[in-house]
Amino acid sequence: MSEDQNLLERRQAALGPGAPLFYDRPLHIVRGEGCWVWDAEGRRFLDAYNNVPHVGHCHPHVTEALCRQASLLNIHTRYLHEGIVDYAERLTATFPDGLERVMFCCTGTEANELALRIARAVSGHQGVLVSDFSYHGNSGGLAALTTGLPTPEPFAPFGRAVPVPNPFRWQAAGDAADLVAHHLALVDEAIASLDAAGYGVAAVLFDSIFSTEGLPNVPADYIRGVAERVRRAGGLYIADEVQPGFGRMGDALWGFEAADMVPDIVTLGKPMGNGHPIAAVVTRPELADAFARDALYFNTFAGNPVSAAVGRAVLDVIAGERLMERAADTGRHLQEGLGKLATADPRLGDVRGRGLFAAIEMVDRRGEPDAATARAVVNTMRDRGVLISRIGPDDNVLKIRPPLTFGQVEADLLVATLAEALAGTRASA
Amino acid sequence: MSEDQNLLERRQAALGPGAPLFYDRPLHIVRGEGCWVWDAEGRRFLDAYNNVPHVGHCHPHVTEALCRQASLLNIHTRYLHEGIVDYAERLTATFPDGLERVMFCCTGTEANELALRIARAVSGHQGVLVSDFSYHGNSGGLAALTTGLPTPEPFAPFGRAVPVPNPFRWQAAGDAADLVAHHLALVDEAIASLDAAGYGVAAVLFDSIFSTEGLPNVPADYIRGVAERVRRAGGLYIADEVQPGFGRMGDALWGFEAADMVPDIVTLGKPMGNGHPIAAVVTRPELADAFARDALYFNTFAGNPVSAAVGRAVLDVIAGERLMERAADTGRHLQEGLGKLATADPRLGDVRGRGLFAAIEMVDRRGEPDAATARAVVNTMRDRGVLISRIGPDDNVLKIRPPLTFGQVEADLLVATLAEALAGTRASA
Repeated sequence: MSEDQNLLERRQAALGPGAPLFYDRPLHIVRGEGCWVWDAEGRRFLDAYNNVPHVGHCHPHVTEALCRQASLLNIHTRYLHEGIVDYAERLTATFPDGLERVMFCCTGTEANELALRIARAVSGHQGVLVSDFSYHGNSGGLAALTTGLPTPEPFAPFGRAVPVPNPFRWQAAGDAADLVAHHLALVDEAIASLDAAGYGVAAVLFDSIFSTEGLPNVPADYIRGVAERVRRAGGLYIADEVQPGFGRMGDALWGFEAADMVPDIVTLGKPMGNGHPIAAVVTRPELADAFARDALYFNTFAGNPVSAAVGRAVLDVIAGERLMERAADTGRHLQEGLGKLATADPRLGDVRGRGLFAAIEMVDRRGEPDAATARAVVNTMRDRGVLISRIGPDDNVLKIRPPLTFGQVEADLLVATLAEALAGTRASA
Repeated sequence: MSEDQNLLERRQAALGPGAPLFYDRPLHIVRGEGCWVWDAEGRRFLDAYNNVPHVGHCHPHVTEALCRQASLLNIHTRYLHEGIVDYAERLTATFPDGLERVMFCCTGTEANELALRIARAVSGHQGVLVSDFSYHGNSGGLAALTTGLPTPEPFAPFGRAVPVPNPFRWQAAGDAADLVAHHLALVDEAIASLDAAGYGVAAVLFDSIFSTEGLPNVPADYIRGVAERVRRAGGLYIADEVQPGFGRMGDALWGFEAADMVPDIVTLGKPMGNGHPIAAVVTRPELADAFARDALYFNTFAGNPVSAAVGRAVLDVIAGERLMERAADTGRHLQEGLGKLATADPRLGDVRGRGLFAAIEMVDRRGEPDAATARAVVNTMRDRGVLISRIGPDDNVLKIRPPLTFGQVEADLLVATLAEALAGTRASA
């Protein structure tokens, strides 16, 4: 631990005390494989948190594609290259008809920036709806549209953060009004207020699984209602698939598909390159062309031959190892296990999620969010060798989002460790 | 060519006609090594343009570091890792005292976004000075601050684009006023106008070599004068080193050093990872800490173990192969060769640049910018196997910015091919 302490101090001097680290006792990871990571002392941890290594840490097929192309050519995209075109075709083929144009970026931040630029250029409006406590990126523009993370920027005058329906909290509050109607009325108000302020509505930007918001089970009716209202106001629906995308939902490759609604723009990020910085905007040709009439968009690194090779390899593995189906199976098994725990332990107020992305709302005796217990559980599980995290407006929602190679054996280990952590936390309370 | 035509059509369908390509006849590159690239038919081209492969295309030391780390661990930065701390320490050690804190990003866009966020948070002001015809990134916020590229966004009300001194154009116009005093007066006006509009001055954001602007020989007095004025107004000096940085200037690792002035914030990008998407903001601890008090900045991919390994390998090669010194030697040799050509050919109105970054201003008989001839020369050189490009507000400045492994033999070949291209262009005129 003294070596780690030394490293921590060097880190704080070079990167600053503000550079975030997970856990009360930071983890010093040196190696990863599948859904396992090892710390500097050789101790193994089950990774039930990380979506960057989407198809498993250091997947050999992806690493090989990376190394092969990096040895051959690593350049920007202002030359013709088969790799980027192949990848673009394969990627767009996974989307509903119409969404057949891709613009590559390097990060989810860049993709969401580009999506908003397109929406504004096409609509001629400035206003943006986001959900309350969402987060879509680290640029100045996106920082001004988050209520989910501390930022020095005031919330944008052209932004409106609408609370999305959370059936669990709604029931807990005993509200008798119609959940969807109530929340759609808030959207109507937000649109009217953007119109009144002269901004109009350029877009709604929603994470398809509402990750930062704590994975509330947002009804599909609500999503369709929002899309309809925003379009009626002349705006576009942007689906942020940085967290739900690439098969994690189990039932579909893209999170938006569950709402039976086709977005105007889709943004992709993190899991796309299994750790390699690649992201994209997928949209309809007429929207991309309208934007391109007035804009020269160029992104040096984006979609270069190496990124494209990595992206293709990730698609290979998702299909070849049937990871979407695996996410569905493991996810179902995990939900069952977590559900059983919840039946026995009232502190697990709600178990929810889709595919291989689960959330557990921790509550106190009065049913109120319990961040302290959630924090204790996350840290105890880390000490017991299983990595998860927590999210949500009240920081009380356990977040379980492992690499898609996670199987039933690993799910059982996670559930057993959670049970132990809960038992330990109870004893110490 | 029919295969390339087919690839071009597939590319346009998937990526859109707006996705930029170099040259009238696009180049289909499949392999790179050192400062050479090969097209799909096996034809070799001298790369005198690309700064992404900063230490040479596919440098084996960099590729090996990439592959080794990608096989071991590729994750974000919320765990302790030696690699990122080592890299941060090595990187900040190359900066003047005080600039000892680094925040990693993935792209120059992200770095400039972060720099502006810090400047605004710290200064409490909103206004930004940029140079006219500059470009600093593809986000919505940076698009609204460029006059160098077409964008659908109107220029920001809190932005001011000031023309920087270009001694060549100034002399050509026969202006008798003092170049620096004239341009500093424009800066005073811009600052006064930002103050009057209530924005104040958060920062000036200058590329240290004014790449997009066409590499004008901006006097150091001007740079220091701008820094002094902006600081007096409560703003910060941000040096964009995405193009000049990492030794290209020959005389120093960072472009700002020539002006004998220490910026408050430095942004790094492209050459940093030899093609791997990595970028950074380097600043003083008190500025980073002031920002961190109100902001949780997190960038998923930035500075991950793979990026850090690649970044360290690039620093290794720059030092080990003495590439900065090489940039100085080759640059001097290149300037001599180009200077001789210019003496014999009045169309080469001005030969300028620093280190291994050269620019040639092409002019017509009246000394006016000649974009048509510049375009013809760029395309003829491509057909003759040497890759360069053009820049500047009038698109008439030949841009020569090869990988740093470029040597005197390659410089001679470039000059000889340029002479041939000029002769051919003359003949056809």
